[in-house]
Amino acid sequence: MFDQILAKKAAENLKKLRNKKPLIHNITNYVVMNYTANALLACGASPVMAHASEEVEQMVSLAGALVLNIGTLTPYWIDSMLKAGKRANELNIPIILDPVGSGATKLRTDSAKRLINELSISVVRGNASEVLSLAHEGSKTKGVDSIHSVDEAVDAALNLSKELNTTLAITGVIDLITDGERIYRVYNGHELMGYTTGTGCTATVIIGAFLAVDRDPVEAATTALAYFGLVGEKAAIKARTPGSFQIAMLDALYTIDEKQMEGGAKIQTQ
Amino acid sequence: MFDQILAKKAAENLKKLRNKKPLIHNITNYVVMNYTANALLACGASPVMAHASEEVEQMVSLAGALVLNIGTLTPYWIDSMLKAGKRANELNIPIILDPVGSGATKLRTDSAKRLINELSISVVRGNASEVLSLAHEGSKTKGVDSIHSVDEAVDAALNLSKELNTTLAITGVIDLITDGERIYRVYNGHELMGYTTGTGCTATVIIGAFLAVDRDPVEAATTALAYFGLVGEKAAIKARTPGSFQIAMLDALYTIDEKQMEGGAKIQTQ
Amino acid sequence: MFDQILAKKAAENLKKLRNKKPLIHNITNYVVMNYTANALLACGASPVMAHASEEVEQMVSLAGALVLNIGTLTPYWIDSMLKAGKRANELNIPIILDPVGSGATKLRTDSAKRLINELSISVVRGNASEVLSLAHEGSKTKGVDSIHSVDEAVDAALNLSKELNTTLAITGVIDLITDGERIYRVYNGHELMGYTTGTGCTATVIIGAFLAVDRDPVEAATTALAYFGLVGEKAAIKARTPGSFQIAMLDALYTIDEKQMEGGAKIQTQ
Repeated sequence: MFDQILAKKAAENLKKLRNKKPLIHNITNYVVMNYTANALLACGASPVMAHASEEVEQMVSLAGALVLNIGTLTPYWIDSMLKAGKRANELNIPIILDPVGSGATKLRTDSAKRLINELSISVVRGNASEVLSLAHEGSKTKGVDSIHSVDEAVDAALNLSKELNTTLAITGVIDLITDGERIYRVYNGHELMGYTTGTGCTATVIIGAFLAVDRDPVEAATTALAYFGLVGEKAAIKARTPGSFQIAMLDALYTIDEKQMEGGAKIQTQ
Repeated sequence: MFDQILAKKAAENLKKLRNKKPLIHNITNYVVMNYTANALLACGASPVMAHASEEVEQMVSLAGALVLNIGTLTPYWIDSMLKAGKRANELNIPIILDPVGSGATKLRTDSAKRLINELSISVVRGNASEVLSLAHEGSKTKGVDSIHSVDEAVDAALNLSKELNTTLAITGVIDLITDGERIYRVYNGHELMGYTTGTGCTATVIIGAFLAVDRDPVEAATTALAYFGLVGEKAAIKARTPGSFQIAMLDALYTIDEKQMEGGAKIQTQ
Repeated sequence: MFDQILAKKAAENLKKLRNKKPLIHNITNYVVMNYTANALLACGASPVMAHASEEVEQMVSLAGALVLNIGTLTPYWIDSMLKAGKRANELNIPIILDPVGSGATKLRTDSAKRLINELSISVVRGNASEVLSLAHEGSKTKGVDSIHSVDEAVDAALNLSKELNTTLAITGVIDLITDGERIYRVYNGHELMGYTTGTGCTATVIIGAFLAVDRDPVEAATTALAYFGLVGEKAAIKARTPGSFQIAMLDALYTIDEKQMEGGAKIQTQ
């Protein structure tokens, strides 16, 4: 039922990540900075948070991937994201964008669209509402309120991925990952993940870490989300309440080994 | 000894909160953003942190309450608080202010007073020193160093509430809540709450969440503080050291049910 | 083998800290603010985070020590650090600097050097790479990549401490602390400390708290690092995974008593 080749790939990516310990440069929101830094350390990567326009180009040049997250954006931060992103593009360093709250305010929607237009972004990770808000004016992509079935969601994801020319990782109870051609689904995860702030943002940085060791954006995002979903499943064995659960997530990021990863990945390629 | 009607009200408010899952818009300090977001999620609300002057008016229009917290203020942030607050007032969305450190520096005292003067604020929550620093020049309200008994504290709270035309929630070993007419006391709480940063700020966001489901500011603040104090009591059963305790608090925010709330509230109305 | 006089001093400093509960003013990075505030509370100090240029001079005048940390610096924050630092110098309030990422970007190296040049700083705490990046142009201090033995590291530390006219606390598997004359080593610590973000920043604030009760920078830094290393050791008895470990560190900061401190310090003075 689940794809064994991608399950093996997930285990390999995890191994590569822990061997390589890539530096992940984050320009992200204040709320999740501490937790995502801890998550990156726990999974084997090395985080740095830096947003000053005077240093982001130099910092990103040291990194294996760049994470852009608009969760507490102001115009200054968006400018730094553009600056870092342009340098990352020159150096062929993959970028992942988390359009937190896109669709909720004009500033967020416009900023996310601007980042997508002006940068070459490997992966955009968000929930369905955030991702679908990124469609161009007059796009044939349906809005989130017009989608009533998994088939419609798949169609919208395929369309929008082509339109935006980037891989989309749409997370939810089932995660959909597509580059406009391939479409993968990840069934890992646990409902308690919705009771910790920054779970989505953490999924994003884990994809960033996987991008630093796997240059196929669809496979990097898919295997990262299987890993992160498995983290939620393992954490839920230890803890059934949100405080303990968020700590158990950090523990599971560290303890899940390649064998558990290969055995636990729930990825569908069809 | 304790008021049974308000204990029942506390349980009802908790139920309403979990059913309605109101969005709480926070313009708050960097230190507590992660913890208060997690606390809001754990109790059943939905947090958003947004401070850009370009988006706060649009964001607050989606919210059930607005939390203003000056813990790491700069003038830019105060301007955004005023902008969001004015829009909230237009839309009749309740505002709670946490004047963190008011009295310690002129910037904080002046900023807190300006927010109170220019906005219609439902509740101000702080410790005695912070709240009493808000008295006007020449006020007859005693300063915190001149108060030597509970009776004097009650008098000062009643006076200041009338002077500022807002409900005051003065937290401490015993919490005092007053709108200048009614005065309620909450005896819930635990001393370990003083060893976790942002406990006061978290009390504030919980009041914010209760304001979104109960438009009587005195009752919303009183029942919220009884709930939050009970959270401390439950957490102290699980953990006696500050790291474990702060996690146990998030767990207790999630696990306390209506029956425990009604049975555990220690509210005095006289 | 280990110095008993300094072990006793560590216990005394811990006692003084818990009795005096000094206010520690932090101008620090977004990532660690919450954790270092909790660490300061847990060890017995009282943290305040404040960075507005309008209030830092007033705030620092209330403090027992000032912590400057450039982890997410922008020019505005550096200006506030200079302003607060100059006032601290006037009032003879000790300053500790954490040059996070110095050497990685020009902004960080230049900013750290500027703070050292314009302020009188009691202690600089960083890893070897950060600290050695602070050497003047043309300095005879070797860079981190040219140091291949403990003896070379000791020579570099002694030289640089004289050159910069400050006490250096270079943390790693073994911590080196020197004022250019005395050189102490601390052997406390645990490898899991490398899997929690902000461990170095937390070491810095603990030194800040000890500086508020011990005006000998070398002894304050040495005893603080023995305490913090012991915290790591105690935490590792309770937790072997990074999420649980970071919580166990906060618990250990609170529970370690003077007797455990005196018995557990691993300080070498030669």
